[in-house]
Amino acid sequence: MARLLRINTRTKKAVFEDQSGDYSGLGGRALTSRLVRREVPPTCHPLSAANKLVVATGLLTGTAAANTGRLSVGGKSPLTGTIKESNSGGTFSQKLAKLDITGFVLEDKPETKVPYQTIFITKDGVDFLELPEIAGLGTYEASAKLFERFGQKAGIMVIGPAGENSRLASSIMFTDPKGNPSRAAGRGGLGALMGSKKIKAIVIDAQGGPGQTIADKEAFKAASKRWAEILINHPVTGQGLPGYGTSILINIINEAGALPTKNFRLGRFDKADQISGEKMIELINQRAGIAKEGCHAGCVIQCSQKYCDENGTYLTSGFEYETVWAFGSNLLISDMDQIAMLDRLCDDLGLDTIETGTTLAMAMEGGIIPWGDGQAAIDLLKRVYDPADYLGVIIANGTAYTADALGVDRVPVVKKQSIPAYDPRTAKGVGVTYATSSMGADHTAGYAICQNILKVGGDIDPLGKQGNVETSKNLQIATAAVDSTGFCLFVAFAVLDTEDALEVIAKLISARFGIPFTVDDIGKTGMEILRDEYSFNRDAGFTSVHDQLPDFFINEELPPHKAKWDFSLEELQKAKVES
Amino acid sequence: MARLLRINTRTKKAVFEDQSGDYSGLGGRALTSRLVRREVPPTCHPLSAANKLVVATGLLTGTAAANTGRLSVGGKSPLTGTIKESNSGGTFSQKLAKLDITGFVLEDKPETKVPYQTIFITKDGVDFLELPEIAGLGTYEASAKLFERFGQKAGIMVIGPAGENSRLASSIMFTDPKGNPSRAAGRGGLGALMGSKKIKAIVIDAQGGPGQTIADKEAFKAASKRWAEILINHPVTGQGLPGYGTSILINIINEAGALPTKNFRLGRFDKADQISGEKMIELINQRAGIAKEGCHAGCVIQCSQKYCDENGTYLTSGFEYETVWAFGSNLLISDMDQIAMLDRLCDDLGLDTIETGTTLAMAMEGGIIPWGDGQAAIDLLKRVYDPADYLGVIIANGTAYTADALGVDRVPVVKKQSIPAYDPRTAKGVGVTYATSSMGADHTAGYAICQNILKVGGDIDPLGKQGNVETSKNLQIATAAVDSTGFCLFVAFAVLDTEDALEVIAKLISARFGIPFTVDDIGKTGMEILRDEYSFNRDAGFTSVHDQLPDFFINEELPPHKAKWDFSLEELQKAKVES
Repeated sequence: MARLLRINTRTKKAVFEDQSGDYSGLGGRALTSRLVRREVPPTCHPLSAANKLVVATGLLTGTAAANTGRLSVGGKSPLTGTIKESNSGGTFSQKLAKLDITGFVLEDKPETKVPYQTIFITKDGVDFLELPEIAGLGTYEASAKLFERFGQKAGIMVIGPAGENSRLASSIMFTDPKGNPSRAAGRGGLGALMGSKKIKAIVIDAQGGPGQTIADKEAFKAASKRWAEILINHPVTGQGLPGYGTSILINIINEAGALPTKNFRLGRFDKADQISGEKMIELINQRAGIAKEGCHAGCVIQCSQKYCDENGTYLTSGFEYETVWAFGSNLLISDMDQIAMLDRLCDDLGLDTIETGTTLAMAMEGGIIPWGDGQAAIDLLKRVYDPADYLGVIIANGTAYTADALGVDRVPVVKKQSIPAYDPRTAKGVGVTYATSSMGADHTAGYAICQNILKVGGDIDPLGKQGNVETSKNLQIATAAVDSTGFCLFVAFAVLDTEDALEVIAKLISARFGIPFTVDDIGKTGMEILRDEYSFNRDAGFTSVHDQLPDFFINEELPPHKAKWDFSLEELQKAKVES
Repeated sequence: MARLLRINTRTKKAVFEDQSGDYSGLGGRALTSRLVRREVPPTCHPLSAANKLVVATGLLTGTAAANTGRLSVGGKSPLTGTIKESNSGGTFSQKLAKLDITGFVLEDKPETKVPYQTIFITKDGVDFLELPEIAGLGTYEASAKLFERFGQKAGIMVIGPAGENSRLASSIMFTDPKGNPSRAAGRGGLGALMGSKKIKAIVIDAQGGPGQTIADKEAFKAASKRWAEILINHPVTGQGLPGYGTSILINIINEAGALPTKNFRLGRFDKADQISGEKMIELINQRAGIAKEGCHAGCVIQCSQKYCDENGTYLTSGFEYETVWAFGSNLLISDMDQIAMLDRLCDDLGLDTIETGTTLAMAMEGGIIPWGDGQAAIDLLKRVYDPADYLGVIIANGTAYTADALGVDRVPVVKKQSIPAYDPRTAKGVGVTYATSSMGADHTAGYAICQNILKVGGDIDPLGKQGNVETSKNLQIATAAVDSTGFCLFVAFAVLDTEDALEVIAKLISARFGIPFTVDDIGKTGMEILRDEYSFNRDAGFTSVHDQLPDFFINEELPPHKAKWDFSLEELQKAKVES
């Protein structure tokens, strides 16, 4: 039977339990959201002993099926107060699976003054170690020291100075196959939750682990083969993403007039070409970077990259469209190296890049630094390293918090989480997702950019109302299901356009566990996850009133399409699965 | 007909309008809450142009009836996001009434960069003045300069550096009869709302104003005479408050085990005698202070005082129990002069003393300053004067905000407003009020300390459940009504214990306006006010889940009575008037 690991951070006791009852057969987001729903009091303070940090591999993680190495991190979000699942790549998840651990839970909380601990998980058990040599370090330096100590085959989950100091925009970083802590469970401040448990890092050495068993190996192998074909044959997963990374979207979204510019004042950035995916690849090729990398073994999409500065020195990896947007057009910064440095700093500090970009926009609104000044943005962000620098404290607490510090009233957040890289007025399907997601504004929760702009899986007018609520709802259900499998969300591009894709996914799950699992079960899984999340949020005090965008999207027209946000609370509620 | 003054802070246009329709016959909190309910979008950003700051005199303000000089300030609270009425003394309200103005509304919002304005109201109209000489000043210095310019007969409403910089714990200060800005519309951050409108001060010169008309002068005179007797004859309003000020409560509440000590860890403070009302009066008498003062003309209770340092230099006035508590036992500070200095600094900065005291407790929890160190608390608070001192920014944004900066998870707030000077576990009636008030934790909204501890108006066990919900509900209704009359809330002590008191109040209102007004109408007024407030909050996203105390009151026993908070959400909802 699948195993859950319970780790008490106060008593330093770790015990395995069978994954049974309510948790039976669940993986990824299905498991994190169910456990948080069942075990975390919805009104608790997110940094109190009552909150739990849950990490779960997907149902297919650890198998040979392509792109199944993602993992879910869950808890009550310190940033939003809602339930939260944050999804990350990296090597960690597959190593958990190799040890035949579906997931683990960090529980309770030690005294504030005790030193940070590192948890070391191997086939032989769980150890708590005090490692003063990594205390307070950025994730790059901390990871390097951890690899030195535990060997290059380790998988690392680590927080930076931001998480150690419980900053609300903190991420949890995971090392990638090259050993860089470039993969993030970024959103919702889960790094602060890990920090409140006084855990600096969790290291896994999976050597000697039993690995995953496959119930029907032949059927799994056949489905797996077809699955890889589906991904490789689709133009987005087979060519677009491998060719240019996610930043291929810069020119596309700019052309659509949906690239939020200067804190959501404009839909196009006049220097978009300087921060485009095409430009990024050009620079990577000039500078001996690497244009195509996977974030975990078995990835065929390879959307990651190694980005170097003009001297060929490594700057960052996992340099995504949303990050380039957050520090680029959002702040009127057009220097790719400055944007890369901001990404690097976020990864190292352990801060969410989206939240941090929109936070720096508040600093620009408030006159702390000038619009478009990349060097000033870098200098400001570096202040987060010093826990006694209170402007750094404010910045690391995110967008709404920084706006409150500076008296800024134009604040792009939903449920206190900042709105990402697609203006909701010109991409209304994803706007519906921002408004109604159980996690605050989140593009990944129902990525209607597919239908609104990319014309994958349908063609829905991004400026009109027609079809956008229904599209978002269906995507939110499907995404929740995908997030429980270990699949990278990008498989959705191929799935939406390929007739037998869902059937193949159902076959993979069915063959892996030797249970009946149909396409219908995928949708049911998604709906159950959303119901767990909605009911948690309801008991935490969230209502339909919180499922709406800030007023300025309703009141201000976005050029060039003169678009406004015009969905009522009633209309938006139809995007939510009935409870 | 009564007149409302509309002041557009962007266009600098002011117009009078008849107080008709929905607003007809309303004063004080009835008017502020009705207007905010009707005209402010509940989901708007509190610092945006859509929010309004409403100031209203009470129904009896400006008449000769005793203790009717209070006024209400309303808006959507920057601190809580709920509707807010904050009540203050001072000379301002009676001067508004002298000009026959029931209230005024600050609307819209100028550009961020424009200089602060001072509004000057006289019988001849309304002027906007730019007064660079008071920009950025504390309220003491600013008031002195305004009196110099506009004469000693002016009434002043002014914000300090905190409000100018939109800090969430900002108060609005009003000058008292001695010209000190010691009276505060303290709670809910309304100073930030005034600051967002770019108004530093509002000055009234009421000379030549028509005054209030009384419909039935004889009846009013008779009722007024009886009213003064009622106040003078009651032991609390006739002796206790005039004798020792509100700090007479320190020893009483300490004895009851309900004096929150060290951030609500203990119910008694071992140095309570050093911060008691008795001690305060002893020091005042030694130092040529003044033990009895009113905050407005016509006050017979005289609970205010002039408190000087050991050299006889003026330190502060309006030095209340809640303030002495907030900086005293709450922080383990027992030096009365240090506490007085903290009060003075808050008044001068324009910060709520309750919110600031609980905020300093967060700073002590977070290790920024040591418990009990009064000088460190003073030095920390002074940092708020510098708008570029970001620790000062954090502190001035209140308790929940500071807790978030420091990772503190033991945060005594309801709806983000901090819990005042009576531990809810040992004074459960007021605990019910904290939980269910439409304004966040607020003792004045339904002061069940009367029945729980003072045994005025009833005798309800403070440790049990029996009767506390009903008591709080009735008090919340009555208080809302009182807050619409211009009466000081302290009249309630006498009213609760005097058989004909409510009838006398009804007669005063009836005679003043020449309308039928009965004791029943008092209750109806209170209920209507609460319904306006609840419906605003509902549309702002508040639910019954927000009507509860933080978990630590439920989980931690308070010595010496080993009391816990034990009301369920369902029980608490019964304290609210049905909509």
